[in-house]
Amino acid sequence: MSADFLQRCRAIVGPDYVLTSQQDCAPYLTDWRGRFTGRALAVLRPKDSAQVAALVRACSDARIALVPQGGNTGLVLGGVPDASGQAVVLSTARLNRIRAIDAVNRTMTVDAGCILLDIQQAAAAQDCLFPLSLAAEGSCTIGGNLSTNAGGTAVLRYGNARELCLGLEVVTPHGDIWNGLRGLRKDNTGYDLRDLFIGAEGTLGIITGAVLKLFPLPESTLTALVALASPRDALSLLNLMQDRCGASLTGFELMSDYCMRLVATHFPHLPKPFVQRHAHYVLLEVSSSESEQHAVALLEGGLEQAVELDLADDAVLATSSAQSRALWQLREHIPLAQAAAGKNIKHDISLPASSIADFIDSTGAKLQQAFPQCQVVCFGHLGDGNLHYNVAPPDGEPHEQFLANQAAISRIVHDSVDACQGSISAEHGIGALKRDDLARYKSKVELDMMRAIKGALDPLGIMNPGKVL
Amino acid sequence: MSADFLQRCRAIVGPDYVLTSQQDCAPYLTDWRGRFTGRALAVLRPKDSAQVAALVRACSDARIALVPQGGNTGLVLGGVPDASGQAVVLSTARLNRIRAIDAVNRTMTVDAGCILLDIQQAAAAQDCLFPLSLAAEGSCTIGGNLSTNAGGTAVLRYGNARELCLGLEVVTPHGDIWNGLRGLRKDNTGYDLRDLFIGAEGTLGIITGAVLKLFPLPESTLTALVALASPRDALSLLNLMQDRCGASLTGFELMSDYCMRLVATHFPHLPKPFVQRHAHYVLLEVSSSESEQHAVALLEGGLEQAVELDLADDAVLATSSAQSRALWQLREHIPLAQAAAGKNIKHDISLPASSIADFIDSTGAKLQQAFPQCQVVCFGHLGDGNLHYNVAPPDGEPHEQFLANQAAISRIVHDSVDACQGSISAEHGIGALKRDDLARYKSKVELDMMRAIKGALDPLGIMNPGKVL
Repeated sequence: MSADFLQRCRAIVGPDYVLTSQQDCAPYLTDWRGRFTGRALAVLRPKDSAQVAALVRACSDARIALVPQGGNTGLVLGGVPDASGQAVVLSTARLNRIRAIDAVNRTMTVDAGCILLDIQQAAAAQDCLFPLSLAAEGSCTIGGNLSTNAGGTAVLRYGNARELCLGLEVVTPHGDIWNGLRGLRKDNTGYDLRDLFIGAEGTLGIITGAVLKLFPLPESTLTALVALASPRDALSLLNLMQDRCGASLTGFELMSDYCMRLVATHFPHLPKPFVQRHAHYVLLEVSSSESEQHAVALLEGGLEQAVELDLADDAVLATSSAQSRALWQLREHIPLAQAAAGKNIKHDISLPASSIADFIDSTGAKLQQAFPQCQVVCFGHLGDGNLHYNVAPPDGEPHEQFLANQAAISRIVHDSVDACQGSISAEHGIGALKRDDLARYKSKVELDMMRAIKGALDPLGIMNPGKVL
Repeated sequence: MSADFLQRCRAIVGPDYVLTSQQDCAPYLTDWRGRFTGRALAVLRPKDSAQVAALVRACSDARIALVPQGGNTGLVLGGVPDASGQAVVLSTARLNRIRAIDAVNRTMTVDAGCILLDIQQAAAAQDCLFPLSLAAEGSCTIGGNLSTNAGGTAVLRYGNARELCLGLEVVTPHGDIWNGLRGLRKDNTGYDLRDLFIGAEGTLGIITGAVLKLFPLPESTLTALVALASPRDALSLLNLMQDRCGASLTGFELMSDYCMRLVATHFPHLPKPFVQRHAHYVLLEVSSSESEQHAVALLEGGLEQAVELDLADDAVLATSSAQSRALWQLREHIPLAQAAAGKNIKHDISLPASSIADFIDSTGAKLQQAFPQCQVVCFGHLGDGNLHYNVAPPDGEPHEQFLANQAAISRIVHDSVDACQGSISAEHGIGALKRDDLARYKSKVELDMMRAIKGALDPLGIMNPGKVL
């Protein structure tokens, strides 16, 4: 049975693209963070949508489950198979053509397996911006970005991956190709299937192509690093800057002093913008379609008012792109510094902006009560209400020992998020990792609707089983 | 049977809110444009979500179909019942509370029956902008706006109704209340049910509440009217202004000379900005978060470059809000002037920007060939690729006689839209009016997925039957 199936797959994609040896399959079976290694019947590497469709029909006929995989950079075990060895991994890596760029319509049509960085560069070559940007951009694929509705650092201005996509091509669980590759800003003809597949983590079908929105490249993008007393002041600064700059405010990242000290410890060559320590820092970014002078004026005007209103204790303004990059490096090195310091317990949460300050206070207090001296590594995209709220052991306590508290600590954090009507997964998705949490925090009504849709579109249950639901 | 059902409804909402007399029901049975009058078993007027849920359960138990209705301003017969008299109309008009405004999170939580204008004004009272704006704003409801994913004049900068909504409360076809009232910019916890209900025209459930996005009020909004030779030049001007202004370009409307002459004929008191006639006009709007001076500089700089590049023949710049309003009036009076001139054949289409000029040329030629001397009334939201492409009789031909060609003319226009990979309903939806067109222009794969979802969420088929699918 499985020999026949594999033979059929080889006939579709060619024998070189059906991997079965342990060595060949290994890179596809362990997740990005190295948390889990699954097993697979085979790894299939089609080159286009037609081959994907034929493989899905083969899987459907043989009742074999499929795990779609892009760059395998996911953080919630959504793209790796389970331990059963009964599923196949379908890698979209060879679907890597940029199909078309329409500079007048400001759209780009791409295969799902295109690397995000390649897409950014192809846009830039046409004097356009594709704004999606995140740490894994050098290896993640746009199909994975869309399947997880990726966020990143440009959401404040440009939205999540969902908002950056106008149309999709999807292979359905029946092995049909849905051509929804529309490049339209307005289209009210029936149900919004596009947004249903976006964020579905491959459980409803396989995204094989997409039409992406492009934007004019800003003339100038500059940053400032602001030292301030509290998250509450950071939120006031956010509102002030949005009032003054509108859509020209393109980034607003919060970092606690603990984060900055971690970076300084593990990456001593990076700049240290302030002599004194401050409780919190905000990295803010302004982009101007007009000129560098205009960007400087926006930053300076906003910071002057912030100092007048006593919202900012100190500030460093980058007046060149090089200086701006250097400030961004401080933010980008936080996850690396954390990794260097040892493992910790990660949370990817979002909250209404108005609840963030209270959340940080009350959750910190609850954690201190349960785990005295634990360290909170709190940073993230404050402009989107999205915090990476990670918990590390007290100084000196072995990390492995502390990790045994993962379930209890995540429960405290997620219950606290839930009480604030926040989300336990802001940008990483659910995958296999947060499936039980989903069942805990979602209402029965919502779960029932999700299950009904899953059953309607994938009645055999072959698409990425065990993920999300 | 029906007497028992009505008795149960009266027990839920009170006898005053179950309308059955012909006179009481009449306002709910004829659509906005007066195209069609249906019949209903009753009109139900609940006051809150709990009553809506109880009514839906009563309908479900009795297998009685429901037609949800907001302000009854829809243009595609989506909110009125059919002629059978077997369905009830469920009016959301009494669900009209603004539940909460969170100025820090920039969100507003509202009942679905709130009038759009009331929402705009409540936002403005908090120094915030709710940008959705359209002709019917004085009587349409936000529930209807969301159910049809309304567009309007601010889509270029702020997006459609879909992009302006963070969370929903929905009564499902089973009579359950789904509380999805989240005020989060990022939330990747499962399938995107919100966007499935948005634009579903009440066929999957009844939207009873929503969390809306608010924005900072711009400091200054100014317009200019530009005379130019062709839609091609208008598109070049669009790209130029977007490059120069970024998100500060908040409106970009195209009008043909024929539209302007219609307005001048029927509304002679309105300003006539140009002495000479020109083939086309663009109304462009710029909003600045900084100052009026900045808005003027953006407009002047863009227009100077447009003249240098020979894209604009002439231009009038409004340097005050009052002048800007006067220019907008020209645009807003086009539909009124058309109505005064007599009935015509309307189309609400969208196209990739790069196809618009060719579409206008080739569709005009096809229409002239089939219906010599017919008049094309072409105007709309060019910045979104959305045209209202209406066809009127040759001068002197009776309108009623010409309307007999509706099917043939719409076929020419829609086939032409389809060939350009456009949409036959950009912002009005499908309703009952375009249901056959949907079946003609959508692929079987897409229709099958829509039907599967409809069947999964509304297995009894009681939600707004005969609409969309």
